[in-house]
Amino acid sequence: MYSENEFAAYFLGAYAENNDVFEEAWLEFYRDHVYWRRSFHPEDSPPVEVVSQYQDGFLKKVGATKQALHQLTAKLKQSVPFYHPRYIGHMSSDLLMSGLLGQMITTLYNPNNVSVEAAPVTVDLELEYAKKLAQMLGFKTDDTLPECAFGNLTSGGTLANYQGLWYGLALKHYPFALQAALGKSPSVAIQVGQQLLSEMTHWELSNLTFDEIVNLKADADTCVQGLSKHEQANINEAVESCRLEQLGNHGFHTRFPEWKTPWVLVPATAHYSWQKAVKLMGIGTHQLVKIPTDDKMRLCPNELNRILEECLVNQQPVLTVVGVLGTTEYGTIDPIDKLVDLRDRFSAKGLTFFIHVDAAWGGFLSSMFRDEQGQSLASDQVASACQYFPSKDVYSAMTALKHTESITVDPHKLGYLPFGCGAFICRDGRAREFVTQSAAYVFDADSPDQPLQLGQYILEGSKPGAIAAGAYVAERVLPFHAQGLGKLPEQSICITEYFFAQLVKLRRELAGTVHLSVPIEPDSNLLCLTFNLNNNPDAATMNAFVQRVYQKLNIDSTQPLQTKQFFASCTRIYRHHLSDNAAGSLCDKLGLDANSFVLHPEHDRQADNLFVLRHTLMNPWLINQANNYIDAYLDYLKQEILALIHPMS
Amino acid sequence: MYSENEFAAYFLGAYAENNDVFEEAWLEFYRDHVYWRRSFHPEDSPPVEVVSQYQDGFLKKVGATKQALHQLTAKLKQSVPFYHPRYIGHMSSDLLMSGLLGQMITTLYNPNNVSVEAAPVTVDLELEYAKKLAQMLGFKTDDTLPECAFGNLTSGGTLANYQGLWYGLALKHYPFALQAALGKSPSVAIQVGQQLLSEMTHWELSNLTFDEIVNLKADADTCVQGLSKHEQANINEAVESCRLEQLGNHGFHTRFPEWKTPWVLVPATAHYSWQKAVKLMGIGTHQLVKIPTDDKMRLCPNELNRILEECLVNQQPVLTVVGVLGTTEYGTIDPIDKLVDLRDRFSAKGLTFFIHVDAAWGGFLSSMFRDEQGQSLASDQVASACQYFPSKDVYSAMTALKHTESITVDPHKLGYLPFGCGAFICRDGRAREFVTQSAAYVFDADSPDQPLQLGQYILEGSKPGAIAAGAYVAERVLPFHAQGLGKLPEQSICITEYFFAQLVKLRRELAGTVHLSVPIEPDSNLLCLTFNLNNNPDAATMNAFVQRVYQKLNIDSTQPLQTKQFFASCTRIYRHHLSDNAAGSLCDKLGLDANSFVLHPEHDRQADNLFVLRHTLMNPWLINQANNYIDAYLDYLKQEILALIHPMS
Repeated sequence: MYSENEFAAYFLGAYAENNDVFEEAWLEFYRDHVYWRRSFHPEDSPPVEVVSQYQDGFLKKVGATKQALHQLTAKLKQSVPFYHPRYIGHMSSDLLMSGLLGQMITTLYNPNNVSVEAAPVTVDLELEYAKKLAQMLGFKTDDTLPECAFGNLTSGGTLANYQGLWYGLALKHYPFALQAALGKSPSVAIQVGQQLLSEMTHWELSNLTFDEIVNLKADADTCVQGLSKHEQANINEAVESCRLEQLGNHGFHTRFPEWKTPWVLVPATAHYSWQKAVKLMGIGTHQLVKIPTDDKMRLCPNELNRILEECLVNQQPVLTVVGVLGTTEYGTIDPIDKLVDLRDRFSAKGLTFFIHVDAAWGGFLSSMFRDEQGQSLASDQVASACQYFPSKDVYSAMTALKHTESITVDPHKLGYLPFGCGAFICRDGRAREFVTQSAAYVFDADSPDQPLQLGQYILEGSKPGAIAAGAYVAERVLPFHAQGLGKLPEQSICITEYFFAQLVKLRRELAGTVHLSVPIEPDSNLLCLTFNLNNNPDAATMNAFVQRVYQKLNIDSTQPLQTKQFFASCTRIYRHHLSDNAAGSLCDKLGLDANSFVLHPEHDRQADNLFVLRHTLMNPWLINQANNYIDAYLDYLKQEILALIHPMS
Repeated sequence: MYSENEFAAYFLGAYAENNDVFEEAWLEFYRDHVYWRRSFHPEDSPPVEVVSQYQDGFLKKVGATKQALHQLTAKLKQSVPFYHPRYIGHMSSDLLMSGLLGQMITTLYNPNNVSVEAAPVTVDLELEYAKKLAQMLGFKTDDTLPECAFGNLTSGGTLANYQGLWYGLALKHYPFALQAALGKSPSVAIQVGQQLLSEMTHWELSNLTFDEIVNLKADADTCVQGLSKHEQANINEAVESCRLEQLGNHGFHTRFPEWKTPWVLVPATAHYSWQKAVKLMGIGTHQLVKIPTDDKMRLCPNELNRILEECLVNQQPVLTVVGVLGTTEYGTIDPIDKLVDLRDRFSAKGLTFFIHVDAAWGGFLSSMFRDEQGQSLASDQVASACQYFPSKDVYSAMTALKHTESITVDPHKLGYLPFGCGAFICRDGRAREFVTQSAAYVFDADSPDQPLQLGQYILEGSKPGAIAAGAYVAERVLPFHAQGLGKLPEQSICITEYFFAQLVKLRRELAGTVHLSVPIEPDSNLLCLTFNLNNNPDAATMNAFVQRVYQKLNIDSTQPLQTKQFFASCTRIYRHHLSDNAAGSLCDKLGLDANSFVLHPEHDRQADNLFVLRHTLMNPWLINQANNYIDAYLDYLKQEILALIHPMS
């Protein structure tokens, strides 16, 4: 399935086999930090006298620190054993030693990536790392080009999603402000394609493409630069006074009464952070339109097409269509290529939107699709160790990423880095100019040649440079291509295929007792399964049964960890996410009465969802010479199912 | 000034004097983690075979990791030496060993505080820590009370400020939705004080107090619980359909045409994150009203009163008034007590708003104001080692915190913890219910007895539990009272007083050459100073001179750190933040022509700001037996000023 010990040197290990490598490296770099401290101004007398370190009061305080740490580490023994292949629940695993060490060592230096003044080293590392992400995703990263991509780290994918909408809103509303401010002023007559900006209708203004808007601002800036200082100030002020950021949503609507709040279209499977995002930004969940998914739990292009047609007819502007690359619950991959087609097709008809891809989970799958030179690999060259992956659909989706506007990707997921590391990547760095915010004490306006100041155009302010340093080091060790980091998801997907194959066998073995089913065919390395007792027709009864099995597989901090054999996670498949066909076929497979799996349960044998076990197969040690944890897990699952059915046997 | 080596045992040290303590503790807990990994299921064969660890391929990968780490640590040598007392620039210092170790050790376990399922230990630690913060600030933390305070960590103060507004918006708009949904339904006749909700005017609805709104929801929930399931669902849906979160800003205005976007009032000195916040949330900077400051750079209550009077006359609702406890640029402390008075006074007149305190910097000063039992200390008991602190104004401001609605505080500032640790604290935990968001896979609706799930009511999703663990341990070692953590800001403020006194002497010494001035009297432990050449009347010339001195004091990653003697930061005092009087008096002190310090410069000798050096005096080793870095810094400053004036001498 993969060469022996391919990843053995990169992780601490399920048995912490690399304890000495980690400890030695840590000690070296910790001491390096200590001696760095000592070499700053060695001529100064050390403030703490050694003799004081042997006194009672001092030792008591050291003791208090150690005591508090003992109390913490005692508690930590109840942590979730993410590092272990017996954990196949949420999107967590063992961590890359390079990234973990890089982050921990840099934490000693405590840089603050809000600005280079507080992080002369790690701001650059953050930008450099984000550039590597942008390359992996297929964006242009030649910084001599005006349209060079850019990105930044966020505390997690949720904030990267917010940033996607935030940038989108700023761009979408800008053309109105510019048109209103310039009026028909001949000194700054600006063209968009063949048309004069001043002559565009509101509907046209709300349907400029991302590139058109970015170029519009560049053109306007160029025109304005030709004017006197006084005129420049006047025009800039006039533009600002018509912008969404200054007017607010209501003010903007008052100023431009024809304007409607644009919709945000997300697949029904989208992460709940999108709900939080539209609430936070005053868009409102009413304007968050859920695109139905198909039977593979992917955004359905026909449904999207239908919604867009309605928008076109009703002149309802659309801000952003979100595609999900690796849904949180099922790992499914939306047809990004189809989104791009639809965007281009509707743009030609006069309805335009941005595409943001929530690739928090699946972004790093891209590393399998590039060779060492950064070139895109042909489908048959991708993941040659896998049997089915990438499907035609998945390949098309992955290779279309470069045509989208912005992408969320979480290095703290398939980047195998500690939590606290998300990323926002934008196809064109000039988009930053639409949100830039300044502050006297942080950003010195008099020094235009200063390096980038992150705090100006990201959502966060002060933030740990250590996270950036860890990510940067991890990429140096395992670069984002098929022969580097890509081997990790590749193995992970091969194992998912193996899991699936073994499930087919298990289904046969259990056929006399339960119906076992994989309700959604995996697109990547997440796999859900569920089962029903033979002869039970009721969804609710089935759910109760699967939940009882799940009780054996979940985190329970009241018991010693060792009492658990395996950890899985769970989710629910809601009836309203499925077509009648898909729901019916799922009921068939599980031996359920389709009348018990309904939109609105009316009695307690019915349910509006099916409870399923959810497995994330990203641990590097799932199958190796010594153990096959997939087989072991399925044996365990079988045994637990049977034990619940025949408790006395 | 303070007892010798009071803090010596808590930090790694300017000369890393506690290198052995830190190293030993680290090794112990690192190994503890290693053996924890090994004791999970010791019956499993370790996936990585030891013999493979001695093979070429393996060693090459280890080598690559070390190589990448060497490249990182070489770069890190250009980091800002925050730990050292020669660094007195931004709000950074040496870190508490307890917090640093706690965080780093927990990073090995990598808990994800989005939910207890991914962090069975550290979610509790986060809530516990936030409770300690709430106690320190004076809120009620008895969790048997419905109004028990609550809080959570954020990646930094910026997100905590966003959270303050986000909660505020949710509460402020709720009464409209409730009234509209219930109509005049007699089954759920709800009272607010003496009045029926159904009979309240729009102006009255937009002027309910925080407590009234929280109670209103509690009352409504109680009433609704008495109805049939069907009626419950209908009412809940009706309420949701009228809420801001569902309608969006524009939809809400359409539904409630009399409603005006509420203003957010911040002092002119507020952090730029407030600008970002109102832009992000669709409020708009036009609705962000800046309250002029007084000559001490504190929010001016008279000006606030004037603005509120206008709002009352114009029926302009006010969402939140922000007070700053420790401004970023000057460390000044707004009169929170006066804000509370004004809120209560205007509430009685029918205009109500929430108070959010941005205490990112100054929140931890509160630790000086409580005894070990958590009781409030009398003014003369606070900071007895200091001569002037707390001034009457500061004492009144600090003790009024408990009457505000919510507070931002940054443990990564005066909590002496690594970056990535902000906090949002709310006076009444029931406020969470106004923003709660659910997601099937994270929050299992069928388990109502589950512990709190943070992701539901915070802005972030996945986030590092390690940060919470570090903070928790630090509080255990140095609790938030005058005899615990409070001694750190106390020393810091004493040193600021000493710095100030020494500046008086320096001013006299330099009197023949330059005018030296402290433009804003320090309220806490930030101190700004500036100077002007005798006989130079022009603000712009002065600024250029001070900037030349600053070039000696700033971070410059092109040179070895050792070439710098000291590090300070800088800011600007803008003319439009000062009254004519204050500007005139500052010009007098600096020997400037008042006509050169103007709102709108017309020639290049004029300036709209004065450039000042800014010093944050929080390092624990600024004055000790061996060194007095304040004296040394002022000597250095004097020498540099004179060297610029008389370059050949």
